[in-house]
Amino acid sequence: MSMEKIAVIGTGLVGRSWSIVFARAGREVALYDADAAAAGRARSAIAQSLSALRSAGLVADIDAIQARIRPAKSLAEALDGAVHAQEAVTERVEVKREVFRDMDSLAAPETVLASSSSTLPASAFASELAGKRRCLVAHPLNPPHLVPLVELVPAPWTDPEVVRRTKALMASVGQEPITMLKEVPGFIVNRLQVALLNEAFALVEDGCITPEDLDKSITHGLGLRWSVVGPFETIDLNAARGVKHYVEIFGAKFFELLKPRGAPRPWAEQVVQEIDQARRAVLPLAEIPSRQAWRDERLTELAALRAGSSKE
Amino acid sequence: MSMEKIAVIGTGLVGRSWSIVFARAGREVALYDADAAAAGRARSAIAQSLSALRSAGLVADIDAIQARIRPAKSLAEALDGAVHAQEAVTERVEVKREVFRDMDSLAAPETVLASSSSTLPASAFASELAGKRRCLVAHPLNPPHLVPLVELVPAPWTDPEVVRRTKALMASVGQEPITMLKEVPGFIVNRLQVALLNEAFALVEDGCITPEDLDKSITHGLGLRWSVVGPFETIDLNAARGVKHYVEIFGAKFFELLKPRGAPRPWAEQVVQEIDQARRAVLPLAEIPSRQAWRDERLTELAALRAGSSKE
Repeated sequence: MSMEKIAVIGTGLVGRSWSIVFARAGREVALYDADAAAAGRARSAIAQSLSALRSAGLVADIDAIQARIRPAKSLAEALDGAVHAQEAVTERVEVKREVFRDMDSLAAPETVLASSSSTLPASAFASELAGKRRCLVAHPLNPPHLVPLVELVPAPWTDPEVVRRTKALMASVGQEPITMLKEVPGFIVNRLQVALLNEAFALVEDGCITPEDLDKSITHGLGLRWSVVGPFETIDLNAARGVKHYVEIFGAKFFELLKPRGAPRPWAEQVVQEIDQARRAVLPLAEIPSRQAWRDERLTELAALRAGSSKE
Repeated sequence: MSMEKIAVIGTGLVGRSWSIVFARAGREVALYDADAAAAGRARSAIAQSLSALRSAGLVADIDAIQARIRPAKSLAEALDGAVHAQEAVTERVEVKREVFRDMDSLAAPETVLASSSSTLPASAFASELAGKRRCLVAHPLNPPHLVPLVELVPAPWTDPEVVRRTKALMASVGQEPITMLKEVPGFIVNRLQVALLNEAFALVEDGCITPEDLDKSITHGLGLRWSVVGPFETIDLNAARGVKHYVEIFGAKFFELLKPRGAPRPWAEQVVQEIDQARRAVLPLAEIPSRQAWRDERLTELAALRAGSSKE
């Protein structure tokens, strides 16, 4: 296993999870947070996550993994000798801009600078930098140590070699990188999520289904199948002559479902209230953290299943 | 286990899978097809599916299950003494209308008549029947013995007691029923699927992503998470104060993602071609059946995982 050093900047949920991703794959991780107290607290949270991974049989020697994650006293120390820096600080453009300015001035020229931003493209915070060609977005789904997808979003000026190296790094540590061919707001995942949510809100607003049954339609149906085959492969496998044949049969019917919705409208306050009330009826606010833990246990089981089964 | 008899009408993929759903839960199944040869072929296909379920540890005595599935020589014989009839014939309104007319005239008054239709509401084929109040749609995802969701879609005139009984039956055989509160075209699952597909087609058409990477964004990201928590629960768990708080933070930003798409347009032939070519590059037409088998193996593993883990 390669011991190439990775810098993780920011010790919130995302930064801690990235540390696990890199360290469990044998990389040395320098973990830095401008808030020294936060960096201190990270250690026990990481230990807890590693222990859950061990229980699921996903990792063995968690002490060795933990030993590869070392707190750095300064940003300069974290970046020293790193091949890749993964920024995971607050999602505010002025904060990203400052961190990228500092990273670009401190890191060796060959260090790739990647942001975990879920909404801000690199153009929004790195376009003024001398080293902008080594900057890009590498957006994970939460938490990255359980959900392998990473969206790579280069700015127009990002060096293609930097994209290639980041893709190779992510694949080498067991993540599943996809590469955007241009910067668009919301990237891929959030655009797809919002398209589905928009229809979901409309179906509840129109009184067609309860919020709880809508969620079940995904967890026990569409989402279950989509976790195995993506949306295009799903329809490709559902017609004798593939996706083109499928669209010949169903394309016009599907358009008739979409058409009456017309142009998108903002979500109405009333339907948001209704969904919120339905959620609170099954999950009081105080129980959100324990349900997040439950979700992560299920995701861990799925990760263990995938690790064991014959992946395509 | 209850021995209540179920009639399954139609021995295609859907009808055979329904037979397994009911028979593995201890029900007696009378399997009928107007084409006697098709009914004969069903037996070996069912045996194959049962054998895969046994390999995954999902069922034990497959001979006993198979023995509970008996071919019926006539529709009358299939319906005789059945508490529930599950129609799974061709998706053509004139065929459904004829089968429902025959079922309504032959079945005892207390037999529920459910259609597996994925697009036709009961209003389209049962509204003229004397027994229309016992008719509804119970639409499965394919194949129902691996994907538990069932959409119950009552017509305006369907007896609420019939809906209640069907829901109880589906739950008792291990399916996950959801209930539509009114008939709308596409029901729930296909409406949600189409909303997401529509954005997926647009992202490929706009040159933002390859079809293959788009599928990965779901299988390794969004779909993976949605198989654990539905779309509303996902956002509910992603803000400290739940879904209302989440919409406060992200609602306006999300609307800005949707707005530029404007009113829905039919899918362009060119993008359909592009996706079809991308699919054929990774999966030649001749390999669709083996990939379907691969998908079903993965779904079987997921079913086994869910059967073993602490379900919520």
